[in-house]
This record gives sequence, C-alpha cells and structure tokens, in this order.
Amino acid sequence: MNDLTWSPGEKAAARKAFDLALKRELDEVIRKTKERAAKIQEPSDLWKLEDYLTERRKEIDTKYDYRYSVLLWVFIRVRQEGRLTEEELQGLSQDKLDRIRRGMGVL
Amino acid sequence: MNDLTWSPGEKAAARKAFDLALKRELDEVIRKTKERAAKIQEPSDLWKLEDYLTERRKEIDTKYDYRYSVLLWVFIRVRQEGRLTEEELQGLSQDKLDRIRRGMGVL
Repeated sequence: MNDLTWSPGEKAAARKAFDLALKRELDEVIRKTKERAAKIQEPSDLWKLEDYLTERRKEIDTKYDYRYSVLLWVFIRVRQEGRLTEEELQGLSQDKLDRIRRGMGVL
Repeated sequence: MNDLTWSPGEKAAARKAFDLALKRELDEVIRKTKERAAKIQEPSDLWKLEDYLTERRKEIDTKYDYRYSVLLWVFIRVRQEGRLTEEELQGLSQDKLDRIRRGMGVL
C-alpha cells in the first residue's frame, strides 16, 4: 500500500478517525480497569490486572501505528473490531474506502 | 547469618510472622490499586498504574524471600518499614530478636 498518496484533506480525515478509534479503545481499557480493580479480592487478582494492562499497552502501541504505509491496515483492523463506522472514515478517497471494505472481507 | 539454626517452634513462628507481613503488604497494594483505578481519567493514569503494579510486584517478589539464610534480613526490613511489631516476632529465640533489633539500628 506504499504507492497510495494522501491529500491534505485525507490526512486530516485519517488523523481524526485514527484518534477517535484510539480514544475509544483507551476509554474501554480505562472502564475495564476500574471494573476489575473494584473487584480485586486476592493478590492473584492484582497480578492478573497487571498482566491485563501490560498486554493491552503492548497491543495498543503496536496497533495504532500512524505511518501512511500501514494506515489502511490500521483502519481495516479497527473497522473489523467495530471501533469505527464507515461514516467515520468519510474524507478518505473512494478508492481507499473501497480498499478498506475489501480488506475487511479478506482478512 | 548462615550459621543460625532454627528450631521447629521458631520456624513456625517465623512462617507466621512472614506471612503476616506479606499479607499486610499485599493488602496495602490492593487498597492503593483500587484507589488509583477509581481516580483514572487519562490514559497516562492507566500506564502509571501499570508501572506501579509492575514495580510493586518486583519489589515484593524480591523482598519476601523465605530462605533461612536471609530471613533475618527480611524481618529487619519489614520491622523497619513498620509492617511487623516486635511482639509479632515472638517465638524466635532471644538471640534472633536481638539481632533483628541491632540490625534495625545499623541498616
């Protein structure tokens, strides 16, 4: 996908969509962390929470990679995970939207 | 301190005191984790909680070393940290209690 070009308008739309998906994912981790912490009873629950946070941090760091060379993959993944609607990607070219939709069917 | 001998009665008393100090420390981490989680607002708070848990886990794993060769050091440290009273070490020989008290003055 390295041959794609991104107009300034597309870059702005992509940044907005990217930040929205990331914010939703982080809000979900915050919500789950609060829930899990409130239920801790045993030390093992404590270390399970630590493991959960470590895994989520690594996954989020890896997933949210804002390089244009991989950005369509990021959007395919967050669309598949239900973190963005197609409407929230408006502003990207029709070609890119089509590629994301096709990618969702393939991966 | 490798030359010390531990009678069965002392071993039982040591185990009880060790477990009590460890339980107190873990209960404190659980309490603080619940407090911190309840206050999370930003993603940075989330990762600070993760760092806190990782550090506390490492520290606790290192500190609570139940080998007789290092056990007096453990008791000196938890006494210094206020996690055990001298009364809670009753059952150890007077010589060991004296060493712990002297160690608290030296370290």
